[in-house]
Amino acid sequence: MAAYSELVKKLTLAEKASLCSGKNFWNTQNIEEHQIPGFMVTDGPHGLRKQGGSADHLGLSDSVPATCFPTAAGLAASWNRELMEGVGRRLAHEAGAEDVAVLLGPGINIKRSPLCGRNFEYFSEDPYISSEMASAYIHAVQQEGIGTSLKHFAVNNQEYHRLTVDARVDERTLHEIYLAAFEATVQNSQPWSVMCSYNKVNGVFASENHKLLTELLRDTWGFEGFVVSDWGAVNERVAGLKAGMDLEMPSSGGVGDKAIQDAIENGTLDEAVLDRTVERMLAFAEKAEKGLFRKQSVDKKEHHDFAVKTAAESMVLLKNEGVLPLQPSESVAVIGEFAEQPRFQGGGSSKVNPAYLDIPLEQIKKTASADQQITYARGFHIDRNDIDAALVEEALAAAKAADKVVLYAGLPDRYESEGYDRTHLQMPANQAALIEELGRVHDNVTVMLSNGAPIEMPWLESVKGVVECYLGGQGMGQASADILFGKVNPSGKLAETFPMTLQQNPSYLHFPGNKDSVMYGEGLYVGYRYYDAKEETPLFPFGYGLSYTTFSYSNLRIEQPEAGSTNVTVTCTITNTGSTAGKETAQLYVKDQESSLERPERELKGFTKVHLEPGESKDVTFELNERSFAYYHDGFSQWIVEPGMFTIAVGASSRDLRLHEEVDVTEDTRPVTRIHRNSRLEELAQHPDLNPVLEKHLAPLASNNLFAQQMTEEGGAADPMMAAMMKEMPLRGLINFSSGHFTEQNLTDLIEACNAKIK
Amino acid sequence: MAAYSELVKKLTLAEKASLCSGKNFWNTQNIEEHQIPGFMVTDGPHGLRKQGGSADHLGLSDSVPATCFPTAAGLAASWNRELMEGVGRRLAHEAGAEDVAVLLGPGINIKRSPLCGRNFEYFSEDPYISSEMASAYIHAVQQEGIGTSLKHFAVNNQEYHRLTVDARVDERTLHEIYLAAFEATVQNSQPWSVMCSYNKVNGVFASENHKLLTELLRDTWGFEGFVVSDWGAVNERVAGLKAGMDLEMPSSGGVGDKAIQDAIENGTLDEAVLDRTVERMLAFAEKAEKGLFRKQSVDKKEHHDFAVKTAAESMVLLKNEGVLPLQPSESVAVIGEFAEQPRFQGGGSSKVNPAYLDIPLEQIKKTASADQQITYARGFHIDRNDIDAALVEEALAAAKAADKVVLYAGLPDRYESEGYDRTHLQMPANQAALIEELGRVHDNVTVMLSNGAPIEMPWLESVKGVVECYLGGQGMGQASADILFGKVNPSGKLAETFPMTLQQNPSYLHFPGNKDSVMYGEGLYVGYRYYDAKEETPLFPFGYGLSYTTFSYSNLRIEQPEAGSTNVTVTCTITNTGSTAGKETAQLYVKDQESSLERPERELKGFTKVHLEPGESKDVTFELNERSFAYYHDGFSQWIVEPGMFTIAVGASSRDLRLHEEVDVTEDTRPVTRIHRNSRLEELAQHPDLNPVLEKHLAPLASNNLFAQQMTEEGGAADPMMAAMMKEMPLRGLINFSSGHFTEQNLTDLIEACNAKIK
Repeated sequence: MAAYSELVKKLTLAEKASLCSGKNFWNTQNIEEHQIPGFMVTDGPHGLRKQGGSADHLGLSDSVPATCFPTAAGLAASWNRELMEGVGRRLAHEAGAEDVAVLLGPGINIKRSPLCGRNFEYFSEDPYISSEMASAYIHAVQQEGIGTSLKHFAVNNQEYHRLTVDARVDERTLHEIYLAAFEATVQNSQPWSVMCSYNKVNGVFASENHKLLTELLRDTWGFEGFVVSDWGAVNERVAGLKAGMDLEMPSSGGVGDKAIQDAIENGTLDEAVLDRTVERMLAFAEKAEKGLFRKQSVDKKEHHDFAVKTAAESMVLLKNEGVLPLQPSESVAVIGEFAEQPRFQGGGSSKVNPAYLDIPLEQIKKTASADQQITYARGFHIDRNDIDAALVEEALAAAKAADKVVLYAGLPDRYESEGYDRTHLQMPANQAALIEELGRVHDNVTVMLSNGAPIEMPWLESVKGVVECYLGGQGMGQASADILFGKVNPSGKLAETFPMTLQQNPSYLHFPGNKDSVMYGEGLYVGYRYYDAKEETPLFPFGYGLSYTTFSYSNLRIEQPEAGSTNVTVTCTITNTGSTAGKETAQLYVKDQESSLERPERELKGFTKVHLEPGESKDVTFELNERSFAYYHDGFSQWIVEPGMFTIAVGASSRDLRLHEEVDVTEDTRPVTRIHRNSRLEELAQHPDLNPVLEKHLAPLASNNLFAQQMTEEGGAADPMMAAMMKEMPLRGLINFSSGHFTEQNLTDLIEACNAKIK
Repeated sequence: MAAYSELVKKLTLAEKASLCSGKNFWNTQNIEEHQIPGFMVTDGPHGLRKQGGSADHLGLSDSVPATCFPTAAGLAASWNRELMEGVGRRLAHEAGAEDVAVLLGPGINIKRSPLCGRNFEYFSEDPYISSEMASAYIHAVQQEGIGTSLKHFAVNNQEYHRLTVDARVDERTLHEIYLAAFEATVQNSQPWSVMCSYNKVNGVFASENHKLLTELLRDTWGFEGFVVSDWGAVNERVAGLKAGMDLEMPSSGGVGDKAIQDAIENGTLDEAVLDRTVERMLAFAEKAEKGLFRKQSVDKKEHHDFAVKTAAESMVLLKNEGVLPLQPSESVAVIGEFAEQPRFQGGGSSKVNPAYLDIPLEQIKKTASADQQITYARGFHIDRNDIDAALVEEALAAAKAADKVVLYAGLPDRYESEGYDRTHLQMPANQAALIEELGRVHDNVTVMLSNGAPIEMPWLESVKGVVECYLGGQGMGQASADILFGKVNPSGKLAETFPMTLQQNPSYLHFPGNKDSVMYGEGLYVGYRYYDAKEETPLFPFGYGLSYTTFSYSNLRIEQPEAGSTNVTVTCTITNTGSTAGKETAQLYVKDQESSLERPERELKGFTKVHLEPGESKDVTFELNERSFAYYHDGFSQWIVEPGMFTIAVGASSRDLRLHEEVDVTEDTRPVTRIHRNSRLEELAQHPDLNPVLEKHLAPLASNNLFAQQMTEEGGAADPMMAAMMKEMPLRGLINFSSGHFTEQNLTDLIEACNAKIK
């Protein structure tokens, strides 16, 4: 096989420029003369979407049949890295079979608002679980020789004006929340490509953002692949190339190529910048040619079975007051048009043409015992919001005649999609009303929800059971039957907070922003970090999910082989204390007990999922490292570990923490702070090495009954106002508050003497 | 009298530099050779604080006796502009009598957090009422020939690290919330001076902030006076002078003078900059010499009576379940050490040495009917937080023996002061416990609160009456008795929201910030703007306050002499529907029904206080203007009126709006927006003049079955995702999504054709 990277010197300027954009909508450019092949890339976070020959120019028409797995919101709820690997491996095989070289995913943008139309395609409100799930997926896909494209980089957290909006976010929040998952995923799994987002970040288009695409992604995090534009994200082609944006998609029909050539010819672009990108594209071609499964056939039936298993493990049992699982002796009324027409995926670029599709009602009938009575009533129209009284009447009659009622409800396609955000968190009025009606006539109603993101549940008290099925993919029908009948014990947990109301959510005041910009005013306080800080009770907290069995937590142990180090191993024992086998996801949160910066009440830094037979106990282990304890300091532009005591909490959800321990970290990565004219007196007074320097330099003033004297007198310290003024005073204040007896020269001497003591 | 301003050319460089800082702690520099006098300036928002001969170097020692009026938090609760004028006039007389030329106040910083230690010195969370009260005060003081210093300019909303912290606030919030009161006050009342604050604003010290001190304050708002530094706010003297900071206080003992001279001599400072400041200081000297009441004696007894009247009108009846006013026949147990040692002012630079001081217990005894039994029990120690069981027992015994119980409670001095912020909203534990205990043994407990800012009231349900007395000044004792016995009908209303809990308040997540900076993440949503937007119920809303009578609102009329204009007169009728004479403050709020920017749910734009006898009706009138409807646009850096329907609501509080009307504004001060490559397709499609241009330019593409064709086809519009993508697409997207059939030249042509249509 040719070493394409050696070709860069042989290519003409025009040839090189041509490699910087697509050949068409879905393919990279080939160059026949040099035997450089082009490759197809397609959407595919949770299923291959390879369009047929006549691709439309928005890339939204039908695609070849492929396995549709649950979307990312559901996958994350599995908290199961191995499951993600299984999905990734099978997707790679399907891509290879269709001669597709790169799957355009996963999407790991943070769920800043529950309204974001594309939340169903993203994992979580938390960067740690997002990167863990993404890394497992990418690792599995790429191990099969198929590439991934980690997207959308970065701060693309809404659909409203997504192509032009300027996301304004402070540096610390940018790093701790919005970049953290990208950073960890790049470092854990080295995706072949990263897709830059449409929006601006703090004033600069992501596609032209040198800081993001070069300084951070490559120089700091070590990314080795190429950056592709989200489809249509290129603003000024040359500016993008300079920033590190390699591949423009879709093709600009030569417009971009010409801009690059012109810029080199008129001297505004260094040809070395172009060569750098060409080398990346050639390196990609080398890797892509090796795709192990290229054109091998795949077992779509096995993939479907895995989709069922994945869907079941992604479902979250939100409420169960003794109503589930259904017993073989019970007659069941299945209600809701979704039981016949399941909603299993979202709209937009991730929309798959499913190879198979389970219908919940059919799968329920197949899964029920032979003599179990299953009736069905439509209940409502998915495509309408108004109540159809006849359908309601029929549904209530069916309910009354059955022992148990199962309602398939959720959001219609038109409610959530790529391209636009929701404006409220309500489900259609006809469905909400039907739930309340059913609750009035029946004591044992369970609601099976299909939706990609949180909804308000004003009807929650009317029902006994709620299962969040998310958008469960093509196996959702069988999976929901498995959960209902207890063939599978639910083990999903929310990877996002469900707010009580839209107004309660952290970004409510600042979403989706104004015409041209959106202010990320809530800062770090995204998702559970907000509800915890505000001490608010959400509808369902982050990490929450029930099981048909119960688990106990015990015996928390912390190993810190090197005293004071951030390399900490945490172990605890989990016991299945019920009578049903099941899986439990134990979550580990870290809290800094005291910090010089405000920090969240707790942050997820580890999780482990374990299967336990009734009565069985197993140890689960979490490995922590420097980043588990660090914060990002925008003044120093770096991550910092500040020594002190940290609380390690392990439990079943962010609000159900069962075990707590402390760990003493003495590691200290704080940079040295120099003393300057605006350093506060307290900074010197509280520093063991600097306090003597301060006292010495103020001594001459004391005899003049000036400020310095008052600092040491009883009277001064006794008055809290006086004490506060002195603590807060910048060193330069010594001049004004001594009427100039402390001179500019004294000030300089004091500062120099202090800095001489600091290293 | 000399025209000092003509002297500038005759002064030496050293003389000129000397005028740029104080002579000492409280006096401006004089120059004997040119007969230029120096003048004294002193603290004095609500009472003169003229220190005696031996002023200490922090300016905190005792001062001459002076009338102590309620602090600003209470004054604002009067909602009475005439009362403010009365206070201002008397303060001017006291200043003149002591040969003081400038009162250092009022402070009009916005109450961003209830924790700010200095909130008692500020008016409100709302800029409109802040500027109305400040303007009335300044106008009255200056009419008497005494100057004021409007402070602290700007964005000084906390004491924590106030001397060095960087307040980071977006431009729109800066103008609409934090600068708006300064802007209006300067324009309404032209204070002699403005005091710059200690902190940085978006990275630049207020004392060196050219944008604030020159571009906005002078060039945009028309300020004609001098800027004085808050005491010790000068960082680099020359940088301050260039920015427009005229007078350094206190004296730097020549350090600042030398820096100025050196800079002129070495060419880094233009002497014209110095001359500009010298002219301002000489103009000040001219005005100050004319001080009408200089050295005239004042009637301190009359001032005390006015202080009593002011205090009574500042008190807010928060709760009254039939318990007040006290009846002559009722025996009363007065409880609480504050009844003997009232807290009537706050700590720090505003602390007055009161000329008189009413003791509540004594005034209650004097005000009660001759045979009314008044007992007293101390109940708790002000200076301690722990419960004294003996005092509690005694208090409970006294309570049980009386018909009514009145508890004087509140925050001790150590809880709130200039210099440090509170860290919680609780009152001392011993007082809170006593209230609960009293509530358990007695059905008719009233709590009289002395505090400068909101507290949590977990005990609220235990009592029947609560009166917020704020820090009521030296007349608080008599005023509280007048309220208790119904000699005065309470008419104060809160000029700030009382939150349920600390966590509920808008700035909770971002206060007081980190070591060096504080992010104003809540943006515009300060005070009631936050609670309204989040649909949260506070403990007591903005504008709230009860009366011993009731008022009805009727007959809302809107006059708009010029159709569509923002010059609107609103009138309604208020009727005293009870049997007691009283005053009512009617509040007017404006809401923009639809705006291109997010706007608050309602904003205060007018208020009128009116006295009504039982059964009496009066019309009240509000005048609105352009600013009543405008928002600040940070892209255009200007205030903008966007045409549309606005709701005018008038009522008794921000949450008790009685009358609503609509007004149609057609005024349109939006600047022209040019079309550019990132204008969205919908911006053209929705514009009547531009849509034809768009259609014409896209027409050639349609025959190629490209993007443009889909835009006009039924199919495209029917799919919501497709429709959204098209709406949101920037014009440059036409290139990628037509595979380059739409060229860069086509794009340029389209943009030019559009802009040719726009004016």
